[in-house]
Amino acid sequence: MKTPIPATPAHLRELLPAIETTANPALRQRLQQCIDRKTKPLGSLGRIETLALQLGMIQRTGSPRLEAPQMLVFAADHGLAQRGVSAYPQDVTWQMVENMLAGGAAVSVLTRQHGIALTMVDAGVAKDFAPRPGLLQRKLAHGTQDASQGPAMTIEQCLGAIAAGRAVMHERPGNAVLFGEMGIGNTSSAALLLARMAGLPIEQCTGRGTGLDDAALERKTAVLAETLQRHAAATEPLEVLAAMGGFEIAMMAGAMLQAAHERRVIMVDGFICGAALLVAQRLVPAVTDYCVFAHRGAEAGHTAMLQALGAEPLLELGLRLGEGSGALLAWPLVESAARILAEMASFESAGVSERA
Amino acid sequence: MKTPIPATPAHLRELLPAIETTANPALRQRLQQCIDRKTKPLGSLGRIETLALQLGMIQRTGSPRLEAPQMLVFAADHGLAQRGVSAYPQDVTWQMVENMLAGGAAVSVLTRQHGIALTMVDAGVAKDFAPRPGLLQRKLAHGTQDASQGPAMTIEQCLGAIAAGRAVMHERPGNAVLFGEMGIGNTSSAALLLARMAGLPIEQCTGRGTGLDDAALERKTAVLAETLQRHAAATEPLEVLAAMGGFEIAMMAGAMLQAAHERRVIMVDGFICGAALLVAQRLVPAVTDYCVFAHRGAEAGHTAMLQALGAEPLLELGLRLGEGSGALLAWPLVESAARILAEMASFESAGVSERA
Repeated sequence: MKTPIPATPAHLRELLPAIETTANPALRQRLQQCIDRKTKPLGSLGRIETLALQLGMIQRTGSPRLEAPQMLVFAADHGLAQRGVSAYPQDVTWQMVENMLAGGAAVSVLTRQHGIALTMVDAGVAKDFAPRPGLLQRKLAHGTQDASQGPAMTIEQCLGAIAAGRAVMHERPGNAVLFGEMGIGNTSSAALLLARMAGLPIEQCTGRGTGLDDAALERKTAVLAETLQRHAAATEPLEVLAAMGGFEIAMMAGAMLQAAHERRVIMVDGFICGAALLVAQRLVPAVTDYCVFAHRGAEAGHTAMLQALGAEPLLELGLRLGEGSGALLAWPLVESAARILAEMASFESAGVSERA
Repeated sequence: MKTPIPATPAHLRELLPAIETTANPALRQRLQQCIDRKTKPLGSLGRIETLALQLGMIQRTGSPRLEAPQMLVFAADHGLAQRGVSAYPQDVTWQMVENMLAGGAAVSVLTRQHGIALTMVDAGVAKDFAPRPGLLQRKLAHGTQDASQGPAMTIEQCLGAIAAGRAVMHERPGNAVLFGEMGIGNTSSAALLLARMAGLPIEQCTGRGTGLDDAALERKTAVLAETLQRHAAATEPLEVLAAMGGFEIAMMAGAMLQAAHERRVIMVDGFICGAALLVAQRLVPAVTDYCVFAHRGAEAGHTAMLQALGAEPLLELGLRLGEGSGALLAWPLVESAARILAEMASFESAGVSERA
């Protein structure tokens, strides 16, 4: 049964922010010349140079600065987890949120290392949390419905999640944001979104998540194929998101759109963050101009995801943790690129001879 | 004509430090269990986990800490540069040393970013420098001799460079060291060392360096083939190093050996640092236990170099700058690995459920 979309163009105008493309040929040329005049052989800093150029384009300056970077981790539960698509019980979602807040998770350790503010957003965890600093309670429900039986969420919940994500982002300081997520079952949701939006077979999008064995992977793939079939009529981004998405994914998509609207640098983590961006990109394509892709992960569908996003990631370290851990590991490279552009001397200023 | 080696085993004992292997099956098992109990799916931090294990093995603890990391940049000139093997004039060596000391080079920018102490070591630059903080004058000569005409250095200079490198390292504080280099013509020297020590055709080891065009690359390859032929009799590591090496490479090899002797973590940058390590490894194989390989660079021979070293690098960003820039870009990953091992909670301590 098709989920009706109430979103008319007028609705969408209100829901979705305007995003300016960063494309600007004159600025690009000026920045490229600036990079080429630095005291180094032409192009010798490779990927760091293209990243520096992107930062200069986003901030419209040859002296980009990253200020008060924010790590936002969106957490939610998935009704689909009842179908045994994860190696871990659903309680791990709230337990890991507690662990992140207590400072013991990978995302906690890495935000401490880099001096980045960590905010946890409860987008729809099945358990209620005691209020505390660093936790935003934006729960839409106690987990989504089981997408193999019907829509994961109503279209109103979906639009509400996007709006909430935008508001959360808008309230944060700084000019850069790193995205992470937590939600048992959410590689399933991400695989479903990828399969439908990129038009790929579900087998190519489905991986072992937190560590399924062969038999469990086969079961997961069968459940996802069945789910995809049930929602065959959902094809528009918001329909697909409501039918098979998650609250953390929807809220993250909204936050990404808002971040790009505000010209913030966006660090995209792994497979699930990629799914959120895929939705955001189909809604407002220019969002990608603001995105830095942290890594190519070990989750089977991630390469297809990156391809669908047109992304060239910075790292390839065999990561498959999520939480935003990949975004944090890649973060110092973004800082390096900004500093290379802003601080390196030119041949003229340093009195260094040029090529013979 | 064969360069005679005065180095008898007794000489070598004095020249080369003892290096303990980090291999320790009981410790390895204990550290691996500690990593496996962290609140994350098994193996989900990929390469960061193997790096954490290595750091734990080097420091013999489950709580590794990186203290006062030192960036050492060794600079020297090469007689072979007279044969037109570089796109840049030889003066660029001293000019870039000045630029690094003045804070305008990539290595200056990136050491500032990470709060790492930068020390420049003049191992044999063709020009004399005014003394100043951050510069160690350990000049063996005003550049090597032209290796296409005879040995690049005498065996005494070669042994002197290794000893000087050991002394420089010994005087530095901290428990980690990053290596970098500067020297117009030094990709030629590194290619020659690789070809001879790994037994590879020179074409596979020779690249564009700072940016040669096709015709210049062909000339460079011809000069190197001729040079390799002239020193056909040099086969032992110290012979090869004296015949075709550079002062910065020899001194760096000595510093690497000393660093491993003192159980410091060693960050290896690109192609030229790799050549220094190749020499060091052939002299005392256990040095590699202490090495973290920063990146796979764009210089043509670097993949063969990494293979000869048995190395799995962290980054692949198309870098070909040298200076230690790759080591600095990868440095935060080493810090992350240490913190992941030292600071992440376990399933027990965080009260997180395990796989179903």
